[in-house]
Amino acid sequence: MIVVMTPDATQDDLAGVQARLAEAGYGAHLSQGEKRTIIGVIGAGDDEKQTFADQVESLPGVERVIFVLKPYKLVSQESRSDRSVVEVGEARFGGPNLVVCAGPCSVESHEQILECARAVKAAGAQVLRGGAFKPRTSPYDFQGLGETGLDMLAAARDETGLPIVTEARAVKDVELVAEKADVIQIGARNMQNYDLLQAAGESGAPVLLKRGLSATIDEWLKAAEYIAATGNLKIILCERGIRTFETTTRNTLDIAAVPVAQKLTHLPIVVDPSHAGGRRDLVLPLSMAGIAAGADGLIIEVHPQPDRALSDGAQSLTPDAFSELMIQVRTVSEVVGKPLPVMAGKGVEGASWEP
Amino acid sequence: MIVVMTPDATQDDLAGVQARLAEAGYGAHLSQGEKRTIIGVIGAGDDEKQTFADQVESLPGVERVIFVLKPYKLVSQESRSDRSVVEVGEARFGGPNLVVCAGPCSVESHEQILECARAVKAAGAQVLRGGAFKPRTSPYDFQGLGETGLDMLAAARDETGLPIVTEARAVKDVELVAEKADVIQIGARNMQNYDLLQAAGESGAPVLLKRGLSATIDEWLKAAEYIAATGNLKIILCERGIRTFETTTRNTLDIAAVPVAQKLTHLPIVVDPSHAGGRRDLVLPLSMAGIAAGADGLIIEVHPQPDRALSDGAQSLTPDAFSELMIQVRTVSEVVGKPLPVMAGKGVEGASWEP
Amino acid sequence: MIVVMTPDATQDDLAGVQARLAEAGYGAHLSQGEKRTIIGVIGAGDDEKQTFADQVESLPGVERVIFVLKPYKLVSQESRSDRSVVEVGEARFGGPNLVVCAGPCSVESHEQILECARAVKAAGAQVLRGGAFKPRTSPYDFQGLGETGLDMLAAARDETGLPIVTEARAVKDVELVAEKADVIQIGARNMQNYDLLQAAGESGAPVLLKRGLSATIDEWLKAAEYIAATGNLKIILCERGIRTFETTTRNTLDIAAVPVAQKLTHLPIVVDPSHAGGRRDLVLPLSMAGIAAGADGLIIEVHPQPDRALSDGAQSLTPDAFSELMIQVRTVSEVVGKPLPVMAGKGVEGASWEP
Amino acid sequence: MIVVMTPDATQDDLAGVQARLAEAGYGAHLSQGEKRTIIGVIGAGDDEKQTFADQVESLPGVERVIFVLKPYKLVSQESRSDRSVVEVGEARFGGPNLVVCAGPCSVESHEQILECARAVKAAGAQVLRGGAFKPRTSPYDFQGLGETGLDMLAAARDETGLPIVTEARAVKDVELVAEKADVIQIGARNMQNYDLLQAAGESGAPVLLKRGLSATIDEWLKAAEYIAATGNLKIILCERGIRTFETTTRNTLDIAAVPVAQKLTHLPIVVDPSHAGGRRDLVLPLSMAGIAAGADGLIIEVHPQPDRALSDGAQSLTPDAFSELMIQVRTVSEVVGKPLPVMAGKGVEGASWEP
Repeated sequence: MIVVMTPDATQDDLAGVQARLAEAGYGAHLSQGEKRTIIGVIGAGDDEKQTFADQVESLPGVERVIFVLKPYKLVSQESRSDRSVVEVGEARFGGPNLVVCAGPCSVESHEQILECARAVKAAGAQVLRGGAFKPRTSPYDFQGLGETGLDMLAAARDETGLPIVTEARAVKDVELVAEKADVIQIGARNMQNYDLLQAAGESGAPVLLKRGLSATIDEWLKAAEYIAATGNLKIILCERGIRTFETTTRNTLDIAAVPVAQKLTHLPIVVDPSHAGGRRDLVLPLSMAGIAAGADGLIIEVHPQPDRALSDGAQSLTPDAFSELMIQVRTVSEVVGKPLPVMAGKGVEGASWEP
Repeated sequence: MIVVMTPDATQDDLAGVQARLAEAGYGAHLSQGEKRTIIGVIGAGDDEKQTFADQVESLPGVERVIFVLKPYKLVSQESRSDRSVVEVGEARFGGPNLVVCAGPCSVESHEQILECARAVKAAGAQVLRGGAFKPRTSPYDFQGLGETGLDMLAAARDETGLPIVTEARAVKDVELVAEKADVIQIGARNMQNYDLLQAAGESGAPVLLKRGLSATIDEWLKAAEYIAATGNLKIILCERGIRTFETTTRNTLDIAAVPVAQKLTHLPIVVDPSHAGGRRDLVLPLSMAGIAAGADGLIIEVHPQPDRALSDGAQSLTPDAFSELMIQVRTVSEVVGKPLPVMAGKGVEGASWEP
Repeated sequence: MIVVMTPDATQDDLAGVQARLAEAGYGAHLSQGEKRTIIGVIGAGDDEKQTFADQVESLPGVERVIFVLKPYKLVSQESRSDRSVVEVGEARFGGPNLVVCAGPCSVESHEQILECARAVKAAGAQVLRGGAFKPRTSPYDFQGLGETGLDMLAAARDETGLPIVTEARAVKDVELVAEKADVIQIGARNMQNYDLLQAAGESGAPVLLKRGLSATIDEWLKAAEYIAATGNLKIILCERGIRTFETTTRNTLDIAAVPVAQKLTHLPIVVDPSHAGGRRDLVLPLSMAGIAAGADGLIIEVHPQPDRALSDGAQSLTPDAFSELMIQVRTVSEVVGKPLPVMAGKGVEGASWEP
Repeated sequence: MIVVMTPDATQDDLAGVQARLAEAGYGAHLSQGEKRTIIGVIGAGDDEKQTFADQVESLPGVERVIFVLKPYKLVSQESRSDRSVVEVGEARFGGPNLVVCAGPCSVESHEQILECARAVKAAGAQVLRGGAFKPRTSPYDFQGLGETGLDMLAAARDETGLPIVTEARAVKDVELVAEKADVIQIGARNMQNYDLLQAAGESGAPVLLKRGLSATIDEWLKAAEYIAATGNLKIILCERGIRTFETTTRNTLDIAAVPVAQKLTHLPIVVDPSHAGGRRDLVLPLSMAGIAAGADGLIIEVHPQPDRALSDGAQSLTPDAFSELMIQVRTVSEVVGKPLPVMAGKGVEGASWEP
């Protein structure tokens, strides 16, 4: 932490800051420039906190306080030497292979989710996604099937063997989701719902944490730290587009967030091209970009009949389009050294890739 | 709702869209331009929904769907002829007088909140604010005193007579907050926490709804609609700054949101200059701007010792600075026709204003 | 300037940075924290430059370089003790009175600009605005009357006595505008057109510098520094709204920019409520907010027939609406201590204000 | 163009709008919904203009005007069936091969640019970039070598055979740049400098048009239309990152802009990973993402000694790092079907790729 004094700060002001740092148990190292005096705060390492910085900024003669260290620890790359691998069924997020999650935005019926699960598995997806608790911007929109939807997901897993990722929208959903699903998804709108983060962490289940639509990468990693602070490090980050002034796309995929997050943290990161673009025709190019930028996986919306989907129809792929996408995903995943796993059995017609 | 067809849409595509609209019970009115055919959807008034629009956008030959009506009803200005007035103790949000809420970011001790309550009342505030459940971006920061804090607030109300506004951070807090406080605050990070909105609405208590830091005005009003849909129309909107690229201020106060929201909705709206600027020195000019733009009230952070505050020290006013601010607030509130109420008794030294 | 070393920087890295600073003539002051070593760069005051910082950031072991001082000097508040006053005819931007500039977006005809000039003068405006060189986002839109328009403006000045502010869109326009008008306006799109800034500065005429629609306050003041570096300090800043995600308004008026710029610089600042909101109905509340926040003036679009305007019709006030606005502007300008000047002669019917 | 009437619009209002449309030569097609009347404007196809829309929005009873068609014609995908190919020396932007431009941010000396040109050619670059006229945010920073720099670039071309792309910062530079270089670059800050766009267009030379840092894709294409309107369709779009709230990167690469622009226009598009990220370590992942998303080329900053670069040192690659990047670029370019051309002669050691 560095304290920058104002140009007209007095010796008394300086003494006041030093006394306050001493009181808090920190050392102070003065550096007298030609225009400004700055104070390096020694020992404020892991403990440097916004609260204390705010207090110091309120002292006379202080212009501002600059943080040097990142405000997260457990999820920080500096905290360990290797990268985390989160195991979900046979999938390994952060492992040597790309992991593709696919399925409908909402679970709508037993038939719909089962048809979807079979199709995405045949195309090479390793995890099934599907929403049972849906956060919707309008109270008049479909809110999801709730527990019934979870049961339909579980039945689809029983038949296909695909593990399930689904959203817990509120603290009260966490227990049920942790029990019936394999990964708890925290949605973008809930990224700073700290009680929910804590509950998800305490469940012990893997957590897929979507970036908030206007969250900085720092805030996102601080949200991950909330989960990690419960002792649960099975965290998968998900970049799903941020809000900007551009309106031709639903959100702006922050593709640089993939390598940046990988430098700052040891957690795996997946890209959601469906929500990022909000348009069916952008799912392929954004998927390709995500893999090329180094993502550990993708999460893609697939619906057997997008024009009958109860949510996100405009950005859902048909099973056929998803199959075609997977063919291209496979090629690029191989040249960047994170191939899709070899497909067991027949899969898509004529499939014969090897990683 | 208007459906715009692609330039190469066929007659079959057109027939498909018309059939789909008919199936959903809507009329279709074709308008054949030189380059595009558009379809006015008749009867899609109050019921036009994102889901159906997404489905239609997935039909062959459809370029896009344009909404004509606003996606909220109960909070819409069109739904009633007069403006809502929300009563909180003796304060009337949306009434003829400006309402000023003031107090610390966090309740820290019995003495702190009582000292604050006395001071802000003496300066002319009509409502006491103070946080007991604090959402913090870092898990290592002070999280609030919880129920103990609520009891301290209640004790301060008992002594000063000021009603209380305080945040419910999670669904589980709502019952307690509704019981012990006078207004339930929904924080910016929770603006799209729909379960919380619903719980707050169902409590029947007045709700102060902060705008999310990257929420459009439309999304904010849709969040208000969630509360209204429970039958509770005692909603107070709060503009507290949005996230932009500018970094000299914590957020960017969207001052135009005040008149825009007042045109779109019948709800009262207050401005939070403390969070908007994030800097003590901006609280006065932003307060003045808020009132001049027509706000129904202000909500301001005041702390007896900002350099010891457990949260938001850098943006809190001292009681003395708040008293001085109120003198200026009073003058501008009078010329815009929404004066602060006459101060009963002694109040600030020499106070003798009349609206 | 502060250099932050990486956690794994070696002694050689440190020596390399110190050698480089010494080579550039700077002193280095080491501060060894528990997790990071930082180096305070002594003597890099006024001369700290982005280029050198970029170079240092490229040295081995350097994590990042933090600037302590602002990258502008001549326009900085620290560079002088009082505030600048820019004289334009009888108006004094930054003086004791509020200055209102008004007129059409584009000069369209002799009659139009004359009618406008008379009307805005009668209502109390002190400066006439009007565009002769129009930057338009589409090449197929009206581009302004050019020199003919300047002559029409000059004729309107001759009759009404109002000085003129008009935009120079390109370097080649500057000489003509400087000769025929009283203030050269630099439009938002040209805020970082450095050749134009320099040419405007060198003309010696007062310059009204609009903030770029996505410029930070720092970048805006650096643009002002370009003008100041030519020796011309007659600079008037103009906040006209920034680009954000919100779409109900054309731009987002950054009302906090008014007090922030006034703290960072000694230059006067005016607010443009017409472009900020882009809607006629927002001009009044945004004007009021601008004055209450401490602006030195306003610049407002007025057109005798907005539904025939060749540009910006949707945000132009009629002369009558402008007269009504000025009545309210007058009251709030008085309570904030920066009154409109007393109106000489007849003015608006029944005018009898005194500051 | 669609006109939406207010809910309380009268028959007179409706007649007024119809009369106005008729006066302007347009047909009007009424569609009476349950809550709103809308008017489809017939014949307003290519001619629909912002000005007329603004005028109509000023008529009584009009709520808003919605555009159906895009405001650009010549650069629109609808205007032709195939994609444009822009020839620059032996490079074909928009052709079957990926085109990589590389070189220093600024030309600093004869030796520097020559060393750079040789190195980037050896690594497989087809075009040399380098700035002679530099727009800098501070007037105290290095502004480029001007004409001398152009001559150095020309000498480097003479030796290496690489064509040159370099920026024209102002109208006065255009003639010289068109004469000495092969492609005129329009910088992000100048994207809406319409006089410059027109001058560049009229030169007849190929123009590389960078997206403004807060320009929507629509505005960017309208800027391209300015160039096209001069009869010059040799336009190369360049996505170089947009301004958002995120601060870990200099800008946010809007990767979706690549496929979106390719759908809306027939022009080739390249990605600038150096400016987008502003960090050396992000150049590789962003390059890979750009190619995978379908870009026609890349433009990358390379400097023999980044820690001595007179501009953009922190984001420049060394020649060695660039060589390594090109190896990876080659692999991904091949799997997406837009390979780098086969390298003639010796090139990088051991090079033996075939497309």
